[in-house]
Amino acid sequence: MNQEVRLCEVGPRDGLQMAKGMMPAADKLRWIRQLAQAGLREIEVGSFVSARLVPQMADTGAILPEVLKIEGLTVCALACNLKGAIAAYEAGAHVLSFPISVSDTHSHANVGKGTDAQVEMMAAIVDWVRSQPRAMRIDAAVATAFGCSMEGAVLVSRVARVAAAVALTGVDEIALADTVGYAHPAQVRDVVRATQDAVGSQLTKLHLHDTMGLGLANALAGLNEGIRSFDSCLGGLGGCPFAPGASGNIVTEDLVFMLESMGFNTGVDLGRLLDARALLAEALPQETLRSGVAAAGIPKTFHDAPARV
Amino acid sequence: MNQEVRLCEVGPRDGLQMAKGMMPAADKLRWIRQLAQAGLREIEVGSFVSARLVPQMADTGAILPEVLKIEGLTVCALACNLKGAIAAYEAGAHVLSFPISVSDTHSHANVGKGTDAQVEMMAAIVDWVRSQPRAMRIDAAVATAFGCSMEGAVLVSRVARVAAAVALTGVDEIALADTVGYAHPAQVRDVVRATQDAVGSQLTKLHLHDTMGLGLANALAGLNEGIRSFDSCLGGLGGCPFAPGASGNIVTEDLVFMLESMGFNTGVDLGRLLDARALLAEALPQETLRSGVAAAGIPKTFHDAPARV
Repeated sequence: MNQEVRLCEVGPRDGLQMAKGMMPAADKLRWIRQLAQAGLREIEVGSFVSARLVPQMADTGAILPEVLKIEGLTVCALACNLKGAIAAYEAGAHVLSFPISVSDTHSHANVGKGTDAQVEMMAAIVDWVRSQPRAMRIDAAVATAFGCSMEGAVLVSRVARVAAAVALTGVDEIALADTVGYAHPAQVRDVVRATQDAVGSQLTKLHLHDTMGLGLANALAGLNEGIRSFDSCLGGLGGCPFAPGASGNIVTEDLVFMLESMGFNTGVDLGRLLDARALLAEALPQETLRSGVAAAGIPKTFHDAPARV
Repeated sequence: MNQEVRLCEVGPRDGLQMAKGMMPAADKLRWIRQLAQAGLREIEVGSFVSARLVPQMADTGAILPEVLKIEGLTVCALACNLKGAIAAYEAGAHVLSFPISVSDTHSHANVGKGTDAQVEMMAAIVDWVRSQPRAMRIDAAVATAFGCSMEGAVLVSRVARVAAAVALTGVDEIALADTVGYAHPAQVRDVVRATQDAVGSQLTKLHLHDTMGLGLANALAGLNEGIRSFDSCLGGLGGCPFAPGASGNIVTEDLVFMLESMGFNTGVDLGRLLDARALLAEALPQETLRSGVAAAGIPKTFHDAPARV
């Protein structure tokens, strides 16, 4: 029996927020529908943040009612403060994703607050959401957990301490985010283990970037530590506008190929997933879409071999 | 104390044989010297094969005397038959690399002989080399060990059987080659274990391609099984002219970054290695050089963290 791995496609949020062009709402909707049809069950569709600072996300409120009609799709949205979280709740998002940076410098650059103040904000959001009639899953993303392009190295003990503080706010899940893509596999192992020691099964997910070409090796290191949930981005778009040096997310196509080849079940149809690239390439002609699988094609050995993990 | 990992840079052979342009011998020499200055102690400098089929390698005999002058460098050369092996020996190569494909179809396409006939050829070469006054290390590369673009899936048991037959010829070392880049990490683990069971410590090396974007994840899977020797290629050039669908080798820059970050010792100076890209980019303007590290720059966290494996 295959093990499930849960993927969250963050292209419409992390991918588009760094794109050179603006994708119109109608194209976003078509693209999100294609992604869902390819089998992605969880998609981060946008963020409730300043339209001035991140204009690509200004239409998140407008597209939410439409994506919520997609059957079986878990709709995630990012917010950085209580106002955004309330907007996400009121728009009907199933999951709120909230960044808390381990690097105080990055936290100030990213959300205008230090780490501790952002943990306080998280607590206020959890309290507010839990007081509402509708349930909304709350995921905290512990950002710059593997290094910061501004502060440099980040201590493992500090990651664990921030994660422990975040866990005490009562969030549902915690992700470790390699915001700038500095992680290496031995570090993934160490930081995941330290965080598991601190927060147990509340640590569910890794959010990895492929800046140094190590993204899938880091995902493998996470799998080896029992992580079964990953963010990724079609074509490897993405980055962080407030984290200099960061490049794209790990490539959904290649991650699906790796996981399915290894015998994990992602629910994704790789052929249909590759079809969903066409719209993206057309809508964002200035962007370079990455993916080994897309360039080489799906090999005829795919799914030939018996699944073994 | 750090563990050593031995890297063999195959750019001047595997990289250039697939390049669209021809690199003049003088540029090859300058490039090989730069690679050696960056700390690469083992370089596959060319091949003794048909100049008609692989014209980029026609000057291997001419450059050998020069590269042999580079102090501390182990000079490797590839040959596919006894004639080529004799030429490599007579030119003074320290290491002969000899491909034996597990896929009979690829073997015929690549060397004009089936797998069994190529094992016989290997035995004849070992006998000839051992009868000569000078020692030459003989490495066999068990090719298409993780799948073949012509035959499809390759049975693990067949890889182990071919490796066992190769081991009996008396070669010094055996590498497993993912010639077309179809491997995934669970397969690397399974094939490495089966081959270790068959030939023990004679299995030393992995030769990986990054076709599906899984190259470094596969390298990590090999490291986890005790492999401490890898082929790689500056800028991720490379492929196989007789294996349709194959793309470049794993990227030396990113592999060095991963290994050194993890606390392994490669002997390579990453900054100098990046310098060696300039000549390659200039000499082969039609080629796209890959590398996350080269694009993003060496992060300031590099070597900050205590080395732990």
